[in-house]
Amino acid sequence: MIQPKTLSGFMELLPNQQIQFNHFIDIIRKTYERYGFLPIDTPVLESSEVLLAKAGGETEKQIYRFSKGDNDIAMRFDLTVPLAKYVAKNLNELNFPFQRYQIGKVYRGERPQKGRFREFYQCDIDVIGRGTLDIKYDALVPSVVASIFKEMNIGDFCIKVNNRKVLSGYLQSLGLEDIAQDVQRLVDKYKKIGKDVFVLSLKDLNIDDINIDKICAFLTLDGTKSEKITKLKQLGITNQTFCDGVSELETVINTMAGFGVDDNCYDIDLTIVRGLDYYTSTVYETVLIGHEDLGSVCGGGRYDNLASYYTHETLPGVGMSIGLTRLYSQLVEAGIIDGGKGAVSKAIILPMGDTLSHCLELAKVLRENDLNCEVYLQDVKFKHKISYAGKSGIKYAILVGEDEVKSGEYAVKDLESGTQTSLSQSQLIQLLQK
Amino acid sequence: MIQPKTLSGFMELLPNQQIQFNHFIDIIRKTYERYGFLPIDTPVLESSEVLLAKAGGETEKQIYRFSKGDNDIAMRFDLTVPLAKYVAKNLNELNFPFQRYQIGKVYRGERPQKGRFREFYQCDIDVIGRGTLDIKYDALVPSVVASIFKEMNIGDFCIKVNNRKVLSGYLQSLGLEDIAQDVQRLVDKYKKIGKDVFVLSLKDLNIDDINIDKICAFLTLDGTKSEKITKLKQLGITNQTFCDGVSELETVINTMAGFGVDDNCYDIDLTIVRGLDYYTSTVYETVLIGHEDLGSVCGGGRYDNLASYYTHETLPGVGMSIGLTRLYSQLVEAGIIDGGKGAVSKAIILPMGDTLSHCLELAKVLRENDLNCEVYLQDVKFKHKISYAGKSGIKYAILVGEDEVKSGEYAVKDLESGTQTSLSQSQLIQLLQK
Repeated sequence: MIQPKTLSGFMELLPNQQIQFNHFIDIIRKTYERYGFLPIDTPVLESSEVLLAKAGGETEKQIYRFSKGDNDIAMRFDLTVPLAKYVAKNLNELNFPFQRYQIGKVYRGERPQKGRFREFYQCDIDVIGRGTLDIKYDALVPSVVASIFKEMNIGDFCIKVNNRKVLSGYLQSLGLEDIAQDVQRLVDKYKKIGKDVFVLSLKDLNIDDINIDKICAFLTLDGTKSEKITKLKQLGITNQTFCDGVSELETVINTMAGFGVDDNCYDIDLTIVRGLDYYTSTVYETVLIGHEDLGSVCGGGRYDNLASYYTHETLPGVGMSIGLTRLYSQLVEAGIIDGGKGAVSKAIILPMGDTLSHCLELAKVLRENDLNCEVYLQDVKFKHKISYAGKSGIKYAILVGEDEVKSGEYAVKDLESGTQTSLSQSQLIQLLQK
Repeated sequence: MIQPKTLSGFMELLPNQQIQFNHFIDIIRKTYERYGFLPIDTPVLESSEVLLAKAGGETEKQIYRFSKGDNDIAMRFDLTVPLAKYVAKNLNELNFPFQRYQIGKVYRGERPQKGRFREFYQCDIDVIGRGTLDIKYDALVPSVVASIFKEMNIGDFCIKVNNRKVLSGYLQSLGLEDIAQDVQRLVDKYKKIGKDVFVLSLKDLNIDDINIDKICAFLTLDGTKSEKITKLKQLGITNQTFCDGVSELETVINTMAGFGVDDNCYDIDLTIVRGLDYYTSTVYETVLIGHEDLGSVCGGGRYDNLASYYTHETLPGVGMSIGLTRLYSQLVEAGIIDGGKGAVSKAIILPMGDTLSHCLELAKVLRENDLNCEVYLQDVKFKHKISYAGKSGIKYAILVGEDEVKSGEYAVKDLESGTQTSLSQSQLIQLLQK
């Protein structure tokens, strides 16, 4: 006998939770399509040469890689590299700007720890331009994400927007371009290390007190979004990178308002950097209000060139990604959602006596009315049938005995409240459609 | 520069085809849930010990298996073994009979050839009993499949039902139990090898001419479903296995009628065996009428014990599986469906002049009316905008210039016919909702 265990680091849910998880996937997918994003579905396996064209360091160590026949194969560790391959491969078939979404599992063989998974869903949207991509697409992407988090109904959230050119340009204007990367690396950790450690670390870089004060004041600039933009402009900095960054940031913020994003669902946060090698201007992070300790639940940004390893064409893009497996486990862990009480069926029909054909006919009618339902088919005592119904999580049990068939009135038991009523077929349909 | 290629044997579709493929998945999933089947989602990777508990021979050779750290890992090659593990692992959490569906990718590293894939979707439904499972569930499963093929709208189809006990019992009644397995193996190939080779092969088994005639007559028994049942009963065979098989087959056929399956969508086919080691009574195959050369597009059957490698409990089950990746490629290949012309968006809004905020507002209203749409955001000449719209496959382009904003009437261009009309917002919504 072999123990039926699942590998650690792999999420495997019971059906009630799976229904809840799938409901989130449905919201994400529906919303991506609502804004015109096109689906793609690339293989989980790619040639290692293709998949590891860019990777290195930590990522490469985590990859599941193996040989089969003549092939050196690897499992995808994100959906961005497959997108780059896909776009480069299909350049002349695709319509640019190419708005695509992909929802799928990715794999990282890292040491399992709380909140980290070796197999997890990523739900990505990106817009890829051929040659150029208008900055207004940087407003589209977080607007879609805002729609999703609103519909998920998991509490207040805030999408924090920044533009990396603003900080870069600001540091250049202070004459700190030589150590700009080091400062940005520290800013990236600002929220984690706190202001005091941040200041000490700046001192270690031999930055003088005046500049340290300026940087700190800059990072904690307050006010509304438009006040922040105004204050940035009022700094009187003429550095081109800085001015471009502020102008782009202003366009993104204003266009998001145009897309109808609620004012309290997004903000400017000048401390957001998101690593150093990939994003080039706009960057995003998303926090759940009151649960900031969970970290960013959806991030992304603008990149200059998606697929330089596969094509000479310049393909700028902007995208965001929801790591749904991790997010779901965090939501359950933090008690933001319950463990899932949903059922697939609206009703379960329990035949009593010789009424099966009538029950099947009733089920057919309910299904024709877009109502999910099941008929219990085991030939067992009534108490076993009602026990199955009770455990199923389904709200209504419809009891169909020979009396019910004759009268055309069904005994409908609310399995949550325990109450039972007698309903005609059309009343029953009305009840279930509520 | 690395060539952006996809591994051979892996399907990767362009977005228009992907939309069509996803539409089929949606039908399958919606229908599975319509009949109350619960979703599960097991990992693609399992411990090799768990996954290969039963496998051997061809299957084991095809498996993607590798080591990572201390783990000996394999990629799932079907959804049945993971189901067995899942049920055995969660015995006390699940509600039996457990109706589950799973739609996911599975992996077989076989030599790629036409119509064979190394990564492909399986869309499985099974019902698992704890201890016992009523034969009427053997009618539920093909009834769900019939609903799916009907809604897929890919032409006429026939689900062929058989019960392996019928042939087994019949061969026993002829005194051929010693070579019954050999005969069944030949019957399994009956349609492929044809009657003449079949008869010669029976002769090779030293079966006499009288029995050969009887077997051939038995396999080609004709008439309606109920006539076939009647003829089987009239053979006057008292062998218990045979009688059980006929009785089960009759129940399945009659209950499928009760489920509302159209009479011409299913039949009894006594030549169906489906391998020798797994299924024990009911078996199914599905053919597309006029495209029988494609082979069975959805098969399955009843098995005595799902998870004997993982638990001492007896878990009988019945299930069917749609191999959607293969089916989709066959449908395209055979010209049964076109390559996919669908678009995600109902309309594309093209701003002309300084009308962006009005366009975004219009898009918001359309989306609130459940209409998918996109706004073209690149700042380019009009001819480039309309060229993008034309390539997109979207049916309607909404041209919004300053005149349109003033008048509240939009210029709506049908990109298929080329005609253009002037519509108010509510007329536009009506048109798009059609």
